[in-house]
Order: sequence, then C-alpha cells, then structure tokens
Amino acid sequence: MEFFYFCTMPKISNRGANMPASPIRKLVPFADAAKKRGVHIYHLNIGQPDIKTPPQLMEAVKNFDTEVLAYIHSQGTPQYREKLTQYYQKSVGVTLSPDDIITTTGGSEALFFGLFACLDPEDEVIMTEPFYANYNGFSKAGNIKIRPITASIEDGFALPSIENFEELINSKTKAILICNPSNPTGYLYSKEELEQLRDIALKHDLFLFCDEVYREFVYDGRTHHSVLTLEGLEQHAIVIDSTSKRYSACGARLGALITKNQEVIASALKFAQARLSPPTFSEVGAMGALDVPASYFEEVVKEYISRRDLLVQKLNEIEGVTCPTPGGAFYVMAQLPVQDTDHFCRWMLETFNHNGASVMMAPGSGFYSTEGLGKTEVRIAYVLNKDDINKAVECLAEGLKAYQNI
Amino acid sequence: MEFFYFCTMPKISNRGANMPASPIRKLVPFADAAKKRGVHIYHLNIGQPDIKTPPQLMEAVKNFDTEVLAYIHSQGTPQYREKLTQYYQKSVGVTLSPDDIITTTGGSEALFFGLFACLDPEDEVIMTEPFYANYNGFSKAGNIKIRPITASIEDGFALPSIENFEELINSKTKAILICNPSNPTGYLYSKEELEQLRDIALKHDLFLFCDEVYREFVYDGRTHHSVLTLEGLEQHAIVIDSTSKRYSACGARLGALITKNQEVIASALKFAQARLSPPTFSEVGAMGALDVPASYFEEVVKEYISRRDLLVQKLNEIEGVTCPTPGGAFYVMAQLPVQDTDHFCRWMLETFNHNGASVMMAPGSGFYSTEGLGKTEVRIAYVLNKDDINKAVECLAEGLKAYQNI
Repeated sequence: MEFFYFCTMPKISNRGANMPASPIRKLVPFADAAKKRGVHIYHLNIGQPDIKTPPQLMEAVKNFDTEVLAYIHSQGTPQYREKLTQYYQKSVGVTLSPDDIITTTGGSEALFFGLFACLDPEDEVIMTEPFYANYNGFSKAGNIKIRPITASIEDGFALPSIENFEELINSKTKAILICNPSNPTGYLYSKEELEQLRDIALKHDLFLFCDEVYREFVYDGRTHHSVLTLEGLEQHAIVIDSTSKRYSACGARLGALITKNQEVIASALKFAQARLSPPTFSEVGAMGALDVPASYFEEVVKEYISRRDLLVQKLNEIEGVTCPTPGGAFYVMAQLPVQDTDHFCRWMLETFNHNGASVMMAPGSGFYSTEGLGKTEVRIAYVLNKDDINKAVECLAEGLKAYQNI
Repeated sequence: MEFFYFCTMPKISNRGANMPASPIRKLVPFADAAKKRGVHIYHLNIGQPDIKTPPQLMEAVKNFDTEVLAYIHSQGTPQYREKLTQYYQKSVGVTLSPDDIITTTGGSEALFFGLFACLDPEDEVIMTEPFYANYNGFSKAGNIKIRPITASIEDGFALPSIENFEELINSKTKAILICNPSNPTGYLYSKEELEQLRDIALKHDLFLFCDEVYREFVYDGRTHHSVLTLEGLEQHAIVIDSTSKRYSACGARLGALITKNQEVIASALKFAQARLSPPTFSEVGAMGALDVPASYFEEVVKEYISRRDLLVQKLNEIEGVTCPTPGGAFYVMAQLPVQDTDHFCRWMLETFNHNGASVMMAPGSGFYSTEGLGKTEVRIAYVLNKDDINKAVECLAEGLKAYQNI
C-alpha cells in the first residue's frame, strides 16, 4: 500500500472555503483568552440579552412528561402551529392557517429553507447593507449571489432610494431580503417604505423575504408593519420568525417560516422533511412561551428603550463616534474614529483592559457585502443592563484613547 | 398600480422543485386520514423506536436551571465535547480531541455541514444504494450529484465489488458516503470491507463519510468498526453521529460531525456559526445521556435481536416475500410480491384494514437513486414490540393477499 505515502489530503469545497466566518463569533477565541487572563469581558458583540427567559417557557419544558422523546412533525406539531396563528392574529393582525407555517430550528433554519426553496445557485437576492451577517453565510452555502444596496449611517440606515433597487434587477434576481426592525442597524421600516418594496416585488415578480424576529421590540410608540399585512403581496411575502429573540430564549432554537404561498411551503417542507423534525424540547418550550401575556413585552420594551437611550447618548459623547438612534431591535451600528474595526475589536480583547475589563463588539465589515465597507463601524448589542452598558462604554472610550497612541 | 393584476406568482427554485419528498414521511397524510377513520396504524415506516428514553437524558433537562436560556458555542460547549471524547475512547477505541467534534442539530445537520464543507455544486459523491433517503435530500439541496452503486438483496446488501467504485471515479468525485450499520438495509460492514473502502479513498484522495448513528446496535456478537479507527485514514474519515438514535431520543436532535481533519472542521464550523448554536435543551439532555451505563445497550440490543428474528422469520413465511437477516440497526429491506410498493403502501393506508388496523411502511424506491429500482421493496423498521410486530406482519400478509385481487 505504498500510495499511503503519496496521497495528499482531500480538499474542502470552494463554498466551504468561501463561507464567511461569523463577525459576531470569530473573535470568541480572543475573548476566551482574555477571560483566562482574568479580564472581564462585556459581551456587546452578540444578540444574547440578559433579560430573563419567561417562566412559561422554562416550566413547559420542566413539566414535559414523556416516556419516549419522539420526533415531532417535520412541519411542527399541528397544535403548535394552530396556537401560533392566534399570536399572529392578535399581534400582527393577519389571519393565517397552520398550513402557512413551517416550524424551524431557529430563525436561521427558516432562512435556509426559504432561500433554498426559492433560489438556485447563481440566482440573485438584493439586500440593503449593512445586513445581518449570517444572510451572507446562508447565501454562500446555497451559492446564491447577494446584490447589496448600501444604506448610509447619515440617513440612520433608512431604505435607500427605490431606483437603486431597479438598477440591480435582472433576469437572475429572485428576491429582496430585509430585516425589520433591522439587525444590525435597529432601523424600523415605515409602512411607506414597505409599500415601495411591495410595489417593486410585484412589478418584477420577486419574493420579498422579511426577517421579523425583532417585531415586538419597536420603540417610541411606533408601529411594526409585517410584510404579511401588505395587500396584494400574499404570494410574494415570506417571513422569517423566531421564538428565541422574542422571548429572550436564544438557546431555544425554535423559529418559523411563514408564507401564504403554498408552493413555497411545499418546497420548503421537503427540506424540513430531510432534517426530520424540529427539536422536541424546543417546541414544547415555545408552546409555553405563547402563554406569555402582552404585558411582558411592555416591560421589556421599556427596559430596551432606556438602554438604547443611554447607549446612544454615551456613544455620541465620545469624540469621533457617531451613532444614530434606532427605532427597534436591540442593536446599533456606530461609527468609530478608527481605520479598521476588525483590528480594533481584536486589539480590545488581546491587548487592552480598563480596570480589568474590556468590551467585545462585532466589527462592521462582516455586515457588508461590498468589499471595504463597514471598516469604521461596529455593531453593538444593548443586551446588558444599564450599569454594565455604562461601564462598557466607558471602557470603549478609554480603549479608543489608548488605541490612538499605538 | 395596475401591475397588481398582471403579475404572476414568483417561481420556486429548481432545487426546491427537485428536492425529493421523504419516502419515510410522504405517506403521513394518508396515515392521518386512516387514523381519522378509526383505523389503527402500525408505524413501521419510521425509525422512531418505542424503547424508553433513558431517565438520565430526561432528568438532565428537567434539572436544568437557568435564568436565561442562552446560546451555547456554535461548536457545542467544550464540556460536552470533552465528555463525548470519553465515550469515543471507551466505545469506539479512538482518541479524539474536543476540537475534532462539532455538535450539530441531529445527525442530519452533521451531514449537511459535512457535505457542504467538502463538496461543491456538480461535485460527485458515491453511495451504495439503497441508502438512507435523506442523503438524497441533502445532496440535492447542495446541488451535489449522487453516483449510486447498487447493492443487491440477494447478497444481503453487502458491499458491491470495489471495481464498481473504481469505474465511477472521475475528477468530480470528492467522496464516498456509507452508513454502517446501514439504514435502510441493516447491513453491518466487515473490517475487510471498510479497509477496501479505505484503500480506494486513499488511492483517489476522497473523503470517506460514514454515518455511524446505529453503531451500538450490532447483533449476533459481531463488532462494529468505526472509520475513525482505520489506519492511515485520519485526514479522510468523517463520521456522522447522533444522540437521537443511540438513546432512543429522536426528538432530541443532537448529533455530531467528527473528523481529525482540521481543515474540514474549520470549514464546517463556519456553517455552524451561521446557524449560531445547537439547541441548548438538547445538549443538556445529551450530556445527561452520556451517563447511561453500557448495560443499557446490552438490554436494548437483546430486545432488537428478538424483534429482528421475529420480523425476518415472519416476513419470509409470507409467500413471495424475501427478507435478508441484517447484522445491525433496526431496519430491514424486504422484497414484496407487488409491482410498485409506492402504490401498495399507499393502498394499505387508504383502502385496506385488517381487524381495524393497517401497516405503514416506507416504499423502497425513495432509497434508490437509480430510476426504477426499489419498486418491489419496502423498508420496515422494527421499532415496535414483538406483539405489535406480530400483528403488523399478519396485517401485511392479509394486505398482500387482498392486493392481489384488486
């Protein structure tokens, strides 16, 4: 067997090589190393809130009694989907059938099923950048091409002019994907903006994907409009949803793909069948979460508003930092007075500490598809309490000072 | 907005259209309808055993106490992966590092990450057919081409001659994928067969994927050999594993991708990061399951052997039915005296009942990639107790008699 010695190592795929590392998670090894050195890390890099998971979710899992932990329906149990339609009726104002819903393993899997069910390799999807970094990952996994339209920090990341969309549309364009309110910018789209997108989707016969996992987190008395409520868009609108964000249960990994387009449902369901079943414990928990009263969100929203106000104010007080005030979700994109936030964020973990602490943020570049953009921006998640936010921003300010001198 | 009235519906993708419906699950609506008519259905279609989930798994979840149900590491928590290496040391005889493991949402996701990390669209993977139907689904999702080599029921589905593999290998061939012991045939590969595969993988520099989720279920005193133990194959061997099957916890959805090839791990980890985290409850349960003593498997294996023996004997007693005796897993592929088992299996649910009961089986065609093959075969899972198996086979025998006369 002399070929043992001659054989090389088999090569990974190009799509594997081209998959982006998560900008949210790629600095984890440096944070871990800092923690090992005894440095306290404020995690503002990831949308993992410190808000308590509602007891309804946790108790449902604790009380789940079964002799055999069995598969559930690939689409999610009919009972769960039925109960979910009541949530949509009440909170979104849309009448759905349980058949319009596929229960997924987190919003991530809903995105995977939706994109793969609707787009072929080389097909194009238009996104406004900065966008949620993992849209990049799932698109690359499916060899789908992202055509970005850049939203600008000066406009608070509002919807770019609709002409920009028209310019990019060609025979390969199959969809537009937005996130509302947006991760990473926190921007909340107005009804008018959504109607502009509706019109262009209908005109060019495109799917309009909308990631609405932060739907409940909208501020200053404004209203969230779901694409599911846009008249005439029933066959084009596809919503990505998630229990994880709504009920501060990131580890639940229970989401949903929602559309009235039954051809999309049938196509996505085949992907769902291939992976057999959503996690049973997660669906049991999500079922419990649906009993959480609306008052829960009032409290949480109040808390997020006060965190946002504090964070935005404190950030803007730092010389050279710009941060618009977002209308929803729990993120801001801030511009820092540095040339390369990839380097700066890593340096904050590897080298810097202020009173034994440092801050982990997500470098902006990973949220852009256009090469070279976002290098002066960071995404900051206001998922910690106000005391921690205060300390973290102070630490960031000190870090920026020290960084000027290296 | 007159275009409202002219617009057509946007089209789903070709890959969505081409995704196969699961042969295991596509008959579910007919089973549901039968149940609504009051017919009892023996579910031999799906690998969902009635064996009790070990209390160690269920208790771990019940006792999991946390205020915030948080994400875990994309790769799985270090503690869990560390504990898993102890299982592999003891049960498989291989020394692994926690870095050789990515925790996944079921074996399904391990397959997804593994295939996508290693194969590009149009790349080819060789499989012996019949193969686990969802290999087809994940390959189609990734636009990966399956090149099948047919194993024959006359040989009990043993490994086809290695020359058949050589003939299919070309510049697009990137991997061989087997399942050991096999779903759907129950065939257990010998060390010699695995070494033949090892030699060809090394000679042509191919990845050898092995789905070993049924590793613990091998019968008649035979030994399971993991591809992880094959000398010289360290950079080529990739194992798909799962808690769900091992501990009769199908709904747990907790699996693993295992390889010593760090380039594959790094590539797969980017896919894992894109979906953020495995389900937290599931990993907590899987951690508990690792405390299940080896004696647990002795009992379960004894039970499966007696079920297998009963099923195989009873099936072969039916005129025109052929069923080899498998060496592992909990499935058989049986040949029935009908022309088209897709039609027969549906008919069993839609039309037939015997004393108010009928049997659900998985039609064979879905386990083959070659058009036209498997049409006289069914996969039967011996996941019910012997009393039910007896009744189910009697029901099948009566069904076959009645079907001759339609």
